Amino acid sequence: MKAISDNGALLYEKVAGRIERMIEQDLLQPGDKVPSIRGLSRELKVSMSTVFQAYYQLENKGLIEARPRSGYYVKTFARQYSPPPNPGTTLKMPLNVRVDGMVSELIGRKRDEAVIDLAVSGPSTELLPVARLNKAVQLAIRRQKGMAYQYAFPPGNPNLRRLIAQRSWDWKSVLLPEDLVITNGCMEALNLCLRAVAGPGDTIAIETPAYYGVLQCIEGLGMKVLEVTTDPETGVNLDELEKALDRTRVAACLFMPSFSNPLGSCMPEEKKQKLVAMLSERQVPLIEDDVLGEIHFGHSRPRPAKSFDQEGLVLYCSSFSKTISPGLRIGWAAAGRYREKVERLKFMTSIGTPEILQEAVAVFLENGRYDFHLKKLRMAYHNQVRKYSAAVCTWFPKGTRITHPRGGHLLWIELPEHTDAVELQKRALKAGISILPGNIFTACNKYRNHIRIGCCRIWDPETEKAIKVLGQLAHM
Amino acid sequence: MKAISDNGALLYEKVAGRIERMIEQDLLQPGDKVPSIRGLSRELKVSMSTVFQAYYQLENKGLIEARPRSGYYVKTFARQYSPPPNPGTTLKMPLNVRVDGMVSELIGRKRDEAVIDLAVSGPSTELLPVARLNKAVQLAIRRQKGMAYQYAFPPGNPNLRRLIAQRSWDWKSVLLPEDLVITNGCMEALNLCLRAVAGPGDTIAIETPAYYGVLQCIEGLGMKVLEVTTDPETGVNLDELEKALDRTRVAACLFMPSFSNPLGSCMPEEKKQKLVAMLSERQVPLIEDDVLGEIHFGHSRPRPAKSFDQEGLVLYCSSFSKTISPGLRIGWAAAGRYREKVERLKFMTSIGTPEILQEAVAVFLENGRYDFHLKKLRMAYHNQVRKYSAAVCTWFPKGTRITHPRGGHLLWIELPEHTDAVELQKRALKAGISILPGNIFTACNKYRNHIRIGCCRIWDPETEKAIKVLGQLAHM
Repeated sequence: MKAISDNGALLYEKVAGRIERMIEQDLLQPGDKVPSIRGLSRELKVSMSTVFQAYYQLENKGLIEARPRSGYYVKTFARQYSPPPNPGTTLKMPLNVRVDGMVSELIGRKRDEAVIDLAVSGPSTELLPVARLNKAVQLAIRRQKGMAYQYAFPPGNPNLRRLIAQRSWDWKSVLLPEDLVITNGCMEALNLCLRAVAGPGDTIAIETPAYYGVLQCIEGLGMKVLEVTTDPETGVNLDELEKALDRTRVAACLFMPSFSNPLGSCMPEEKKQKLVAMLSERQVPLIEDDVLGEIHFGHSRPRPAKSFDQEGLVLYCSSFSKTISPGLRIGWAAAGRYREKVERLKFMTSIGTPEILQEAVAVFLENGRYDFHLKKLRMAYHNQVRKYSAAVCTWFPKGTRITHPRGGHLLWIELPEHTDAVELQKRALKAGISILPGNIFTACNKYRNHIRIGCCRIWDPETEKAIKVLGQLAHM
Repeated sequence: MKAISDNGALLYEKVAGRIERMIEQDLLQPGDKVPSIRGLSRELKVSMSTVFQAYYQLENKGLIEARPRSGYYVKTFARQYSPPPNPGTTLKMPLNVRVDGMVSELIGRKRDEAVIDLAVSGPSTELLPVARLNKAVQLAIRRQKGMAYQYAFPPGNPNLRRLIAQRSWDWKSVLLPEDLVITNGCMEALNLCLRAVAGPGDTIAIETPAYYGVLQCIEGLGMKVLEVTTDPETGVNLDELEKALDRTRVAACLFMPSFSNPLGSCMPEEKKQKLVAMLSERQVPLIEDDVLGEIHFGHSRPRPAKSFDQEGLVLYCSSFSKTISPGLRIGWAAAGRYREKVERLKFMTSIGTPEILQEAVAVFLENGRYDFHLKKLRMAYHNQVRKYSAAVCTWFPKGTRITHPRGGHLLWIELPEHTDAVELQKRALKAGISILPGNIFTACNKYRNHIRIGCCRIWDPETEKAIKVLGQLAHM
């Protein structure tokens, strides 16, 4: 007979839940010793075998590990990710990008409720401040009267620009409202900035692996990429970048210095500063995609590279798509010395950004709940990333490597070498699970045994089952 | 002493107002004889001198004219517009476009309530269905629940696409929902279509004069233009186009066959059919900008060129910006055989179009008031165009020529040859009136004595005064 607690749950599950919560809340951190079996049994007034059962379950979930003659410890994700293999010499040349056909073929963008979506990168609807957004839209309509339906020419709503600029002062970037151009999401901002600094045939240095949307965008503009080795912890390899800059005419760099997609790498501050200095010395513009910068798991927001920019050479792009709402399509560019050009390009690309939505986001920011919302969101993602990681560690084949991001919501997973991720993706889709294969994150035909998983879906038994199924498929 | 009517207005003004309304309602059409002075005096029981005073006022306004020994007639705008001068031989070569700097310098896009805006092309807020749009946005939010804030990937909201496709059946284009990609307004649609069919260095055949936004867009994409002589009544000169196609490799044509901007020309149906056949024979795609097609003053909507397209070579672009709301930025492309490419380009340019606004427009269309709204809008524009034209005829210098559009809301005005339109624009702005100088509507440094006036502001004494001031400035 198993002991049953007051509310009917199995007693050992209750004990396990308590430890799990402590790990989630960072009260117990990776590498910490968890309470001894004897100690916890005394503290909670349960039998030692109940605590043992609880720990056994936590061990199975991949959350803790037993160390011989020492007790149990919070797992540090023993199967750490190792850096991707260095690209070969031929790959150090600028390359034409040819990913678009593949991406469009591989990515079904239709909403299908039946599919467990581990491909998406964006908050699940449960994590969006829907009720407050509804109110914000309504207030925006009332405030603007009929003007909500009129043209809103670039640079965009002055109130919204003021509120975005205000927030930048926290991370020492000191943007002013007049530095900003509001765009249809970060993607449009990246497009405009790319077009402002480079033309067809020009070379853009990017991270590898890099967000497939950026690769498509560069391909669409007829530019080439130079992929620079990127450490999953600390981002772009600056030595390699420096050599590349000396060797090749690079029109611009486009990096995600804070929580890159898909790696989740975050450049330390000194490294960002060094990067900005290096590029400024050579007068090479840096397009900084900071769309995940607000989703940090640590105590403070990483400073963007833009905050070290003294010459207006950093074109900073971000949006509210990963925090407030992907569907409002409100992003911005602070393009430094290219500001005017970006503003003009915005006009000739889509005239303006819907006024009603600009004002709605302004209303949302004004009411001061954004920080509260972000806190909740970060905690949710942190937990989800941990749970997804633990499940991958549990169910994926031996030899699997996984990133350990300190922000964002993405996991980059390297499967054993023989695995064909495209095949895995197809089989997973048949089983009702969508993931992204690694080969769409490069122009170099690499990462054939890698996948990206977005930890956006709220963790539930179905998610766990999906990862288990993925793991089983990956074994085949 | 002047006769005063019951409500205190001058009696002759009341009589003049009655005739003016009859002209507005098309009860009296250009060329019609107006009632004789004796007849009207009897009918209205006013003195003949009151009627004479009324007709004198109408004549001053440019609405009627006295014909010797025959009485008064509704004026047929005696000072007709004549076609623009043929571009010289050197201009028959593809040209690089360099208008962007000029446009940005000349066009102040800031909303300034103090300025009488005759530069804008888009419904004034009084003509927008604001209350119904408010309701539509609210219903859209309720219907979509949280999904209104989620990603809406291309091709876009199925309901909206169905409703747009439905309308196309009236003008025999027979579009299906799956033919459409929803975009951020027509401008994005044009951008995507241009990128789908041509690349940097390619030549695009356009009308002349042509919408400056299209010129900026082509410039931004590094393409060249070939400007084809365009008749202010019947559009592009097909003989000239045919010769150009034989002589030059043209990647695509981008025309506004129905109510072009700024000319207001409308190709007759047979001519549209001939154009499509000519291009189809040579396999040259036609990008059709039909953003003003719904604003016809005649009884029926002109058929788009797309409705003659059998091979998927016409990329049809339009939006609701000139009818429902410029600020919602909801447009679409029916790109024929380039549909998939346009869909991909849409994703890599701005990911998607805000779901909430797509759904709101769908709600607006569903409730069946769109046709009613269009009817009102067409009548309003028709009247406004007439009043603005009459005032220009009254106040502008002798030798001024003006278009006589049968749709849209734009007037293209050719001033006496010595006039410097850029100088005029500057002086007008100082006097609190904004207009557009002709030179931004071409890549060839033409139209230096032309201006575009948008008849969008609701006609009122201030508008009339503004046109009078413009006329005075043009005399200088």
